[in-house]
Amino acid sequence: MRILGIDPGIATVGFGVVDTVAGKQKYVSCGVITTPAGQALSERLEQIYDDLTQLIAAFSPDAAAIEELFFNTNITTGISVAHGRGVILLACRRAGVPIYEYTPLQVKQAVVGYGRAEKRQVIDMVRRILNMPAAPKPDDAADAVALALCHARSATSLLSAKGGSQCSTT
Amino acid sequence: MRILGIDPGIATVGFGVVDTVAGKQKYVSCGVITTPAGQALSERLEQIYDDLTQLIAAFSPDAAAIEELFFNTNITTGISVAHGRGVILLACRRAGVPIYEYTPLQVKQAVVGYGRAEKRQVIDMVRRILNMPAAPKPDDAADAVALALCHARSATSLLSAKGGSQCSTT
Repeated sequence: MRILGIDPGIATVGFGVVDTVAGKQKYVSCGVITTPAGQALSERLEQIYDDLTQLIAAFSPDAAAIEELFFNTNITTGISVAHGRGVILLACRRAGVPIYEYTPLQVKQAVVGYGRAEKRQVIDMVRRILNMPAAPKPDDAADAVALALCHARSATSLLSAKGGSQCSTT
Repeated sequence: MRILGIDPGIATVGFGVVDTVAGKQKYVSCGVITTPAGQALSERLEQIYDDLTQLIAAFSPDAAAIEELFFNTNITTGISVAHGRGVILLACRRAGVPIYEYTPLQVKQAVVGYGRAEKRQVIDMVRRILNMPAAPKPDDAADAVALALCHARSATSLLSAKGGSQCSTT
């Protein structure tokens, strides 16, 4: 099973691809889609949509794991990220990739085993679990790999335990 | 010149079509795209994208006027509307329709001539200006007609006065 993790945004969208082979997770790829700040919002959205559609065609994931949005501090950033998240969900939907949502707390719980873990701890655990020589960079890409890992682990435990998934379909 | 006004949302997206003929505005059509609450978000986004793409193909607008988002009260609603607005901007962009954004204050100013006008006053002025027998319904459709009218009037005054537009491209 191949999972595409997506960390939504407008300026930077992180992506990470993780395979599960014989119950073990393997790192495949990660990176970021970036759009220039000076560009019109509709143009940036189109670029995110097109780039993500190409990534899905290139990697053929069986599922997408995407971060849920919670905004208590900066509403303006939240609104802008949500625009990006809208076209990301549309790209997955049109490519026929099932979508699963996870909160940052669920990701930390699944990767580190502790919901209040620091960001650096999460990235370090991602590196260890996937036997990577160095932590994935930049942070948005690492977050996306963590999301993919979170779903891969939830899906694996789901299969073995027949229940207790933390994910929700969108 | 034909303007498509769009009032963004997830459950209900309002649309309104207004023509400018010899400097006068004429009502063409209005209505709403609705999506069921029980459906997955990605499915609702796809329906909005597909329906709007069909509307654009049917009416061939020269420009789209869409409401800017400001949220001070309900962040959850704001995030959800912004998801919808993302795919709306994408649909306009992909159809090659130039996008203009207006705040509710700009719409009231352009339609009623007073930025703090009540919602009912705006809808009533829309009906009068466009010589409609009754006010457009539901309210989301009326808001969209007001947006189209706002852009039609700004664009007309722009042409005659060569400046002072209240719109911004997106």
